Amino acid sequence: MTNRVFKPLLESLLAGSGVSIGGDRPWDIRVNRDRLYRRALRGSLGIGESYIDGDWDCDQLDELFRRVLTSDIQHRPLLRAAGALKRLQSRLTNLQTRRRSRAVAEEHYDIDHRMYALFLGPWNQYTCCFFDGTDDLERAEVLKLEMLCDKLELKTGDRLLDIGCGWGGFAKYAAQTRGCEVTGISLSAEQIRYAVNYTKGLPVTIRKLDYRDLPDSGLPPFDKISIVGMIEHVGYRNYAGIMDVVHQMLKPDGLFLLHTIGNCEETTVVDPWIEKYIFRNSMAPAMHQLSGAAEGRFVIEDWENYGRYYVPTLQAWYDRFNANWDRIRALPTAKPFDERFRRLWNYYLMSSKAAFEVEWLHLWQLVMTRRNSGRGVYRRVMRRSPDQLQPAAAQAAPKKALEAA
Amino acid sequence: MTNRVFKPLLESLLAGSGVSIGGDRPWDIRVNRDRLYRRALRGSLGIGESYIDGDWDCDQLDELFRRVLTSDIQHRPLLRAAGALKRLQSRLTNLQTRRRSRAVAEEHYDIDHRMYALFLGPWNQYTCCFFDGTDDLERAEVLKLEMLCDKLELKTGDRLLDIGCGWGGFAKYAAQTRGCEVTGISLSAEQIRYAVNYTKGLPVTIRKLDYRDLPDSGLPPFDKISIVGMIEHVGYRNYAGIMDVVHQMLKPDGLFLLHTIGNCEETTVVDPWIEKYIFRNSMAPAMHQLSGAAEGRFVIEDWENYGRYYVPTLQAWYDRFNANWDRIRALPTAKPFDERFRRLWNYYLMSSKAAFEVEWLHLWQLVMTRRNSGRGVYRRVMRRSPDQLQPAAAQAAPKKALEAA
Repeated sequence: MTNRVFKPLLESLLAGSGVSIGGDRPWDIRVNRDRLYRRALRGSLGIGESYIDGDWDCDQLDELFRRVLTSDIQHRPLLRAAGALKRLQSRLTNLQTRRRSRAVAEEHYDIDHRMYALFLGPWNQYTCCFFDGTDDLERAEVLKLEMLCDKLELKTGDRLLDIGCGWGGFAKYAAQTRGCEVTGISLSAEQIRYAVNYTKGLPVTIRKLDYRDLPDSGLPPFDKISIVGMIEHVGYRNYAGIMDVVHQMLKPDGLFLLHTIGNCEETTVVDPWIEKYIFRNSMAPAMHQLSGAAEGRFVIEDWENYGRYYVPTLQAWYDRFNANWDRIRALPTAKPFDERFRRLWNYYLMSSKAAFEVEWLHLWQLVMTRRNSGRGVYRRVMRRSPDQLQPAAAQAAPKKALEAA
Repeated sequence: MTNRVFKPLLESLLAGSGVSIGGDRPWDIRVNRDRLYRRALRGSLGIGESYIDGDWDCDQLDELFRRVLTSDIQHRPLLRAAGALKRLQSRLTNLQTRRRSRAVAEEHYDIDHRMYALFLGPWNQYTCCFFDGTDDLERAEVLKLEMLCDKLELKTGDRLLDIGCGWGGFAKYAAQTRGCEVTGISLSAEQIRYAVNYTKGLPVTIRKLDYRDLPDSGLPPFDKISIVGMIEHVGYRNYAGIMDVVHQMLKPDGLFLLHTIGNCEETTVVDPWIEKYIFRNSMAPAMHQLSGAAEGRFVIEDWENYGRYYVPTLQAWYDRFNANWDRIRALPTAKPFDERFRRLWNYYLMSSKAAFEVEWLHLWQLVMTRRNSGRGVYRRVMRRSPDQLQPAAAQAAPKKALEAA
């Protein structure tokens, strides 16, 4: 009975996308349990939960998402209503308070670091890598790190602050290849534990600190500041606030590099499934949200978009995650990684890949200087191709991979 | 009597800027006629008019403006009130209707082309030139034109639309050095007359056309579209409209280059003196106004700021304008260029120079693609230094300068 009511609803939702239920093309939906139809009524959240639970399968999830995202499904009444509720919540409350920010760190980034090690490259870069003239993840990681160093004009003795330092990959690279003195901050205890060990013997300090506490931290202003893949967790209400903090912590003639996922349009919320299962209280900024927050404080010198490199990045992570699945499953953790976890990550990686493919999401690197810094023209950096890499950089491969730590 | 009232008002307005009335530093104000004090009550408009009329002099106008712009004068009550009135007018009416746009073209751009020829470089580039590794205006013009060609990836046979083509400098350069077929549009009869003659024998068409009429012009979509130094006249109410027009006129996989003065903060009006004497109904966009208008239509691939190059550009124009003043004054025009005209241009060039110096204004080059263009990653172009110029480009110097036409 219920199927006769709900199945046509899901079918009408998919109409125009070229995705069919029970079809035999690789992007079609193969139904394992009929409860999918009922759960799909909750929109993207229900459909995603239903996938994790194994109610349906699809051979090419990325292609399914690409088709759905280029159809006008997003604007259908059912999904609009769900979105409107969430936007209301976002307007009424600050979803990125200190307490909520800690929750994100604990849920997503405190996952056992060995799991990340088994799908990231050796530099543990959990943001877009630079697949320029290479299809090798490790080289793409190094190209990305080189780009960060060059854009920040890092040189020996520079004091660099890395806000949201992850597992310390960039901190280590900047210290090793450019001779910088780096302070990295994070909220994830697991990341900090790893990064402290990973950067041992180098002039790197890793601290557990909320960015809002930087001005009262006693740290003197820095030559350079980077935020790489962290402002996505800051929330639109706090963009002006984090810009203020960076302005306070940066020397008058310093450089600030912001590397972030960008949204093709203004949003105050994130997809409800991503929100619940991957990144709590997160959102990709729109261009005018970031530029509005920078105005008056900073001069935006350079703004580059290479969102299309997130497509091979996510594909590489997906390939490695699945190739190493048996090893991930065998990791001796308190709560072992199970089949639901595998499905969840595949759903997350492939839906993200499609969002970059259809240019729903971008990857931006912005370089800013403080207003009235007295600096000359900021000279943009040419992208390096792999054969242009400095020998020093190429030799700087980490002594041991994350998984071995 | 009036001086005892008004002089202290002007003095209080300048307090904190380091500029004094009757002082002997090069940036001080030398009063020729006391009516300056009364006229200064009208704020920047009155002070500027008073300068044109010779009520006061200053040896280093640029330094005077730099000091005023870095003090907090702009935010004093008197000037705020004047600004508020203008903003109100801007909100209530579209200052850039078709009729008003024609007025700008006629007032500023219909000035005898020989006057411009006597201060611009040989390529007639009346926007920021690229003083990278050179202090020669002609080389800086060629570097800028090379940058436009490279960013647009111009190649033989490309159909290029140049919206606001000025005297045809870029159209000619693109046709000569890259083998493009160019359509340039302008509203200024004087510019069109010149550009048609200037580009004779090349695959260049110059038309008198409002950008709003492009969709009904019968012109098929172009491979590349450029707007160089023209969106400053479009007005914030029309940014979305012009983006729509470009979107319609651009092939799905085309490139769009926007070169514009940028404002460090949102504004809906321009300085009242500049407004009255130089650019009627104009304004430099803020970053978030442009990005907001592009969202949904375009992917902004690349956004570069080189406002600091406008400082040497304006200085070069100022030097040449004054060095050639006797020749400008001797030009046989219907209404000869007089001393008021000279003072007006000096005031305009030096106040603009200061605005770029203090980073009140920027110069942006944006490269955009249509959303879902299916293009790969946009590969940014390295700035060329003069010795990297292609021989072809270096030889492409125009046969005759603007003044000789």
